[in-house]
This record gives sequence, structure tokens and C-alpha cells, in this order.
Amino acid sequence: MKTFGNDTFLRALRGEPTDYTPVWIMRQAGRYLPEYRATRAEAGSFLDLCRNPELACEVTLQPLRRFDLDAAILFSDILTVPDAMGLGLSLNEGIGPRFERPVRDAAAVAALAAPDPEDELGYVMDAVRTIAGALDGRVPLIGFAGSPWTLATYMVEGGSSRDFKRIKAMIYESPALAHRMLDTVADAVTAYLEAQVAAGVDAVMVFDTWGGSLGWRAYREFSLPYMARIVEAVKAAADGTVPVTLFTKGGGQWVEAIAATGCDGIGLDWTGSLGETRRRLGEGVTLQGNMDPMSLYAPPEAIRTEVAAVLDDFGAPGRHVFNLGHGILPDIDPDHVAVMVDAVHELSARGAP
Amino acid sequence: MKTFGNDTFLRALRGEPTDYTPVWIMRQAGRYLPEYRATRAEAGSFLDLCRNPELACEVTLQPLRRFDLDAAILFSDILTVPDAMGLGLSLNEGIGPRFERPVRDAAAVAALAAPDPEDELGYVMDAVRTIAGALDGRVPLIGFAGSPWTLATYMVEGGSSRDFKRIKAMIYESPALAHRMLDTVADAVTAYLEAQVAAGVDAVMVFDTWGGSLGWRAYREFSLPYMARIVEAVKAAADGTVPVTLFTKGGGQWVEAIAATGCDGIGLDWTGSLGETRRRLGEGVTLQGNMDPMSLYAPPEAIRTEVAAVLDDFGAPGRHVFNLGHGILPDIDPDHVAVMVDAVHELSARGAP
Repeated sequence: MKTFGNDTFLRALRGEPTDYTPVWIMRQAGRYLPEYRATRAEAGSFLDLCRNPELACEVTLQPLRRFDLDAAILFSDILTVPDAMGLGLSLNEGIGPRFERPVRDAAAVAALAAPDPEDELGYVMDAVRTIAGALDGRVPLIGFAGSPWTLATYMVEGGSSRDFKRIKAMIYESPALAHRMLDTVADAVTAYLEAQVAAGVDAVMVFDTWGGSLGWRAYREFSLPYMARIVEAVKAAADGTVPVTLFTKGGGQWVEAIAATGCDGIGLDWTGSLGETRRRLGEGVTLQGNMDPMSLYAPPEAIRTEVAAVLDDFGAPGRHVFNLGHGILPDIDPDHVAVMVDAVHELSARGAP
Repeated sequence: MKTFGNDTFLRALRGEPTDYTPVWIMRQAGRYLPEYRATRAEAGSFLDLCRNPELACEVTLQPLRRFDLDAAILFSDILTVPDAMGLGLSLNEGIGPRFERPVRDAAAVAALAAPDPEDELGYVMDAVRTIAGALDGRVPLIGFAGSPWTLATYMVEGGSSRDFKRIKAMIYESPALAHRMLDTVADAVTAYLEAQVAAGVDAVMVFDTWGGSLGWRAYREFSLPYMARIVEAVKAAADGTVPVTLFTKGGGQWVEAIAATGCDGIGLDWTGSLGETRRRLGEGVTLQGNMDPMSLYAPPEAIRTEVAAVLDDFGAPGRHVFNLGHGILPDIDPDHVAVMVDAVHELSARGAP
């Protein structure tokens, strides 16, 4: 069994006692860091950076040099999977992601196939191996993918969307077609995450960024079952040693159903109470979150107050991984991040009884 | 006491038995109707239409001619209030609302004052009187306003926003300043709704469209207390005869707190279960909603199935006002709306026992 310098994050996900509440930050390797912006400029585009294992490793490690974080997360993008399925991804600053060949009819759905992770997505697996080697067990490495539903929104809409009109029309008009598409995407994501585990990630997270756009029945039909399949497959692939966290942004009303997938962790945005969610779910699952990313604009003293409020809300020590409720914003002052990380450790430290 | 041809909507809000589940549609007077587009073209701009009591009355009545709706809603816009506060509103198709003079510092907040509803907003009161006269009690007339928080987001951001960065920075950096602003906006909204009641509306709805962007603690500090003040004032002004419905989009996790304001109805978006919400809250409050507006893209048979699912979810007859979970979209086929309205009435009709 792999040993870690700091396994607090994994212990929290397994429900084992920890000395303090572990913390990492969604998008911790990102534009708010000047050293990230420099490496990205060196790489060329964002996608060039994703496709360069050495530089992807460098930006993955950058936040760990600045902050006392309890986990690293693979630097990549959820849209690498549909890109590898042949949709032709471009990512342009200010415009957002675009697919050249969106999936909008039965023929396009029928043409989809799950890519070989070590072939079309081999650059991601190379990045995982490079990062895992460089980390050398200092802290765990988190791998990730987009949920099938979330990936499908981009694949059908052809990019970002405010209203998800095309894919919602598809689920209401042609539910069987939507299911055929989601089925293939779920196969792709499953193989991709299994390959990440084989390449060396220590935990897995599934980002269901747009699951919250669905009605509660539609969520249980078009998003959750596909994530449940992924949870089952990843846990089987790793003999249950690699914990899986599911994060449906806007899914705070559905945590019982999410927990029923058998996932180890549930990511929560800032709209729900950790304490209330914990009371609803009991101690069988770890809660990750959930400070409002915007609260990092506040002055340091107010940030400490927010951290304390999030910790107090969760309550007595237990299965909690501290995080923001969504990705860190590009214009946050890195010094404010340090205040948050240090406050989490300091305020959650369990002294000798 | 005023008598109505059809008071099913008011009975449902009061918790009295009804023969069927009443239905109205958020934005029922709107762009999906060709006759609305014609009247709007006649009026000039959207704001010209709001400011013309005769034409505002005409578009308010148009959906009632087509569909068997159980309530009319004043045709207006939530941004009339900040416009009357001197912020200089413009509404441009494709660009969205813009304020010429956004409120971004202490001086701008200090300069704000609640407008006189019969002066700066006299055109709205004239529209209410005209519509109430034309309706003549056929169905109840709903008046409305934006919540103080929601109006403040537009006032600070200067228009629509995806992330509400400026006002969120304000609440985290300068909470006292945000409260001073919200206090004045709440005074303005209260006076505006009291005047609508005096002018003849039979029920009131407060749209907290962007309350769901707040964390659960922030919602209870910056949005809900200001709505609670409005509920109390409106109910006092009308001796409790005018029911008040609060609608926080994305607020499904907070319904207990919303119900505690003493409101008569709670609007729900499509992400929550009506039945589960009802079990949480009991029978002391009416639930309004909550079909996904996008489901109206579906073919008629699927629309009937969705209506049946929403009614089944609510369960045995009780305090339910059927609606969409958000405003109807401009490209929905009006024939699909008729299918929905008729299905609600038909499927919820309580036969003789």
C-alpha cells in the first residue's frame, strides 16, 4: 500500500480520524497565480498546457509551493474527453469552449465512440504519471472527469450555455436519443477514470457542473445513474482503495440520492448548510466544501470569520474536506488564499483532549 | 368584500378547498404570443409598453383570451423601481437591462431614496387601476415587485450578471453599506406594493430571482429579512386579505426559513420536489410551481405526462398553485401552453366523491 507524507485528505474521505480538517481548492492550479500565468504563456494556449505533461505537472505543483494544501489535483480540463471523441475542441479566452462538430442528431450520436484513454488521451495519462512521480506521495493526487450529463451539455450545445436549451429539448423530445448519447459518454468517462487510477491518481472526483440545471426527476434519469455507474466501476477497478467524490453544483436538495450511489464524498456548493446536510446523511459519507468563492474578495479578518463559520456549520470533527463551493476566481489575491488555508488548519486543529 | 368569477387561485393561497388546481404562468403576457409582439411593436420599446396603461392592460389580458388561466398578472418589470430611484434604466433586446448610474459606493447609496409610487411610478398604478377595471373580478390580479436583494444586484452590477461579483464583493467587504442600500430598496418596494394593493391588485408576488446566488448564511442576512419586512407590511396594509407569495429561484433548500416569514405562498423552481417540500412544511403554506419551462418544448403527449408528474408529486389535493418553475421562454409554441393549462385543470379536477 502506498504511503503518504500527508494522508489527511484520504483519511477524511475514508471516515478515519484526522488531526485537522484537510483543505484543497477547486481550480487551485489556475489563473489567480502569477506563476501559472507565466507557465501558461510559455506553453502557448490552455490546451497546449494540458497536452504538455511536464508543464501540466509544473502548474499542478505550483499551488502546493505557496499554500499548505492537503491534496494536489491533476491539471487538465473536463472537455478533453469529448475532444478525444472527435468533436474538435477550441478554447478561446473570453469566448469560452467551442466544439466544431456538436452532437445534435441520431447520426451524430451513433457516430460517437469511447476513446482509448492511453491513445487519444495518452497525454493526460502521461501527465498523471509525471505528477505522481514528482509528488512522490507528499500529498494525494486527485484525478477527475466531467459527469456524462455535464459533458453532454457541451457536446450538444456546442459550448457553454446559460439555458441548455438544445439538450433540454433533446431530453424532453427524444429521451431515448439522449440516453444513447449519455451511455457512450459514460463508457468514455469510466475508461478515462480507470486509466487515471492505473496511472497513479489516489482519489477521483466527478464534476457535474450543470446537473443542477435539471429538474429533480430529470436529474435522477439523465445525470445521476450515469455517475452511479462510474462510482461502481472506479471503486471496483481500484479494489475500493480510491475514493470517489461526486459534485453536482446546485444539487444540495438531492444529497440523499447522490449518497445512495455509494460515493465516498459529496461536493457541495455554498448554498447549503454542511451541518444540515450532515444531519440528513449521517456519517457514512464525507462532505466537501463549501465556502462561497466570492468571499475571498473580503479582507483577511473577514475571510477567517467565513472559514470559522463553515467549520462551525459542519460541527464536531468528522468527515469534512474543506474547499470552496466552486472554482477559485481568476482575480482573487493569492495572499487571501493563504489566509483561508491557514485558518482552516488552525481553527480545525484537534488539540490533545 | 370583492367577489370574483373565479377565485380558485385565491382560495388555494388561503388554504381553502378548490375544485381543481389553479394555474397561471410566469411571464404569461410575453413574447411567445404573436399578439403580444404586435402590441409591443405598436407601443415602441418594452419600457414604452410598461408606461402605457392601456397597452399594458391589453397585453395583461391577452393570455386570458387564449388560455383558461386562473389569474392575471400585472404587465410590468421589476426594474421600474430602481429606474424610479433615478438610476437611468435602458432595456435593449439582446443586451439586456442597463443602468446608466449604478450604485457602487457610499455616496451613491446615501443618495438613494424610496420613490413615491403615485408619482414616479404612477404609470404602474394607472396600469393596475386600468387592468383591475377591465378584469372586473373575472380572475384575481397579481401585483409584483423584485426582492430588495435582486433589485440591488442590478443596481450594483449595472445590469444582468452571471457571477454578481460587484455586489458579492460589497457584502463581504462592506456589509454595512450593503445593508444601508437594501434598507432603502426595501422601503421603496414596500411602498410600491402597498400602492399596488391600494390600486386594486388581489395578490402580491415578490421575485427574488437572484437570491439563489447567495450562500445560505448570506441569504438569511441579505435577502430574506428584507422580504420578511415586505410580507409583514403588505399583509398589514391589506388587513391580511391580500396573499403574498415569495419566490427565490434556487431557494429550494431554504423553504423552512422562507415559510417563517409568514408568507402565504412559496414559489419553487423545477429543481425540488413539491411533495418533499410539502412534507417538510406541512399545510400552512401554499406551494407554487414547478414544471421545467423547457419541458414545453416537448410534444403534447409528453407535456401532459409532465403535468401529471408535477401534480402527482404534490399529491392529494391541497395548497398548490400550478406554474412553471421560471418564466415561459419566448420561443414556446402557444399551442403547447394550452395543452399544459388544460391538462392541469383536467387532471386535477376533484370529482364528486
